[in-house]
Amino acid sequence: MSDPRPIGLFDSGVGGLTVLREVVRRLPDESTIYLGDNGRAPYGTRSDDEVRRFSTECLDELARRDVKAIVVACNTSTSVALPDLRRRYDVPILGVVRPGATAAALATRTRRVGVIATPATIRSHAYFQAIKDENPFVEVYEHATPELVPLVEAGKLRGQEVDDAVRRSLAPLMGSRAADGEWVFPLPSDARIDTLLLACTHYPLLSDAIVAAAGDGVAVIDSASATASVLAELLAVNELRAPVGGRPLHLQLTTGDVERFRSTAAILFGAEFASVEPVVVPAAA
Amino acid sequence: MSDPRPIGLFDSGVGGLTVLREVVRRLPDESTIYLGDNGRAPYGTRSDDEVRRFSTECLDELARRDVKAIVVACNTSTSVALPDLRRRYDVPILGVVRPGATAAALATRTRRVGVIATPATIRSHAYFQAIKDENPFVEVYEHATPELVPLVEAGKLRGQEVDDAVRRSLAPLMGSRAADGEWVFPLPSDARIDTLLLACTHYPLLSDAIVAAAGDGVAVIDSASATASVLAELLAVNELRAPVGGRPLHLQLTTGDVERFRSTAAILFGAEFASVEPVVVPAAA
Repeated sequence: MSDPRPIGLFDSGVGGLTVLREVVRRLPDESTIYLGDNGRAPYGTRSDDEVRRFSTECLDELARRDVKAIVVACNTSTSVALPDLRRRYDVPILGVVRPGATAAALATRTRRVGVIATPATIRSHAYFQAIKDENPFVEVYEHATPELVPLVEAGKLRGQEVDDAVRRSLAPLMGSRAADGEWVFPLPSDARIDTLLLACTHYPLLSDAIVAAAGDGVAVIDSASATASVLAELLAVNELRAPVGGRPLHLQLTTGDVERFRSTAAILFGAEFASVEPVVVPAAA
Repeated sequence: MSDPRPIGLFDSGVGGLTVLREVVRRLPDESTIYLGDNGRAPYGTRSDDEVRRFSTECLDELARRDVKAIVVACNTSTSVALPDLRRRYDVPILGVVRPGATAAALATRTRRVGVIATPATIRSHAYFQAIKDENPFVEVYEHATPELVPLVEAGKLRGQEVDDAVRRSLAPLMGSRAADGEWVFPLPSDARIDTLLLACTHYPLLSDAIVAAAGDGVAVIDSASATASVLAELLAVNELRAPVGGRPLHLQLTTGDVERFRSTAAILFGAEFASVEPVVVPAAA
């Protein structure tokens, strides 16, 4: 049994394309429809009611297009709206918080996990709570890194400026390397993390710099890969995998400016996501 | 929305109780029914046809008892029978291979993962394949450790004999520590793993000795914990979680000798799984 219908992905903007990229890599036979609510992004400054309403309108549009599963690739929407969304639709809906939290809780050897994210995500403590749900004995060190998203959105993914910003952003969690290569660590040494969770969809685009700054002793886990893995398992368990060897289609929709979406996607992902179309939500508007 | 029906777990014997233990820890509001096919264990020496038939008979029994989801907590059955089982039943069915493989592929920093399991599981290359599905760039070092299950089944979970057997079993993957505490490593040093996957349901019972032998630099991941985490997510996504604050019931069924099951469970898990009843499968027999 198989199901050729597309997977729906939803984000407030372009950040969720990192999740789309991992889904396409992990599930190459699957078709996808991505909806970015760029016209109303970012969600981080919106009220909970607005986030719930916008998310519902976007998922209505994906449901109308007969997707077989939905990934809410937006940390804000996952934290605020996921229970309501799951009640509203028959299709299985996956958020980005729990898969990343699970992977981090399983990966840590010393039970000390660092979480970096935007200030809004850190304030929600969604990852802290999800990691504690997995294993209450894991110590979770949350740290907001507001410098990183603006870099990505400016198309700066590597180079000295990026390396410096990443090192500065991680310093409170990681310490920094002295001239002799040893770590100089500003916190009590027993707070040293061994696992770092990238809890913002933009951050995988900086993973080269982050992995280099974290060093070999730290497992760097991103929510995008973890979510794609759980999605693969979810489709298998629910008998929803697409037939092998089909011709998958990938469509990106945006409520914002199509050319701007296309050029940002091109800077960040090359030619991979170029089938961009405008969409109006709610559909009745 | 919630669903108070029990979760079904199936294993050829008592090993899957480690999965049950993690499910109860991770999902304390859920009721469970565990079925051990002890009367026909071990499955490792059975033909594929027998494994499929036995597994189907056991899952028929669980389905008859109206479980809402099933965990196949048996590596042999997962490797051989899972696709057939998923086609046969409407309830979602989870195996133990993929969750562990996913967690290991996400946890490794150096892309070198060791897998220890019984000879039958290693011969199936099920974990090798599942890790490669996750990430083809991860090097997977499989190693059969036949000394360990007999120790567990003899009730030996700690002490010098266990430490020695574990160290011997891991040596080809891990090297051993010299008197000065440094690692002496028999393989080329670039083959040094940083993540070790316990791919046998018995091994979490030896985790203290395994973690000690592996050392701080190696993440030890067990399929039992990883499977419980994916089950939690699966229930949430499919709106199948039990109501909070109910009184969960736990029932263990065995096709073998009830007293023997109870005494083995008591040695391995204390008083946790003491509601053991006999069952005959197929039910019509």
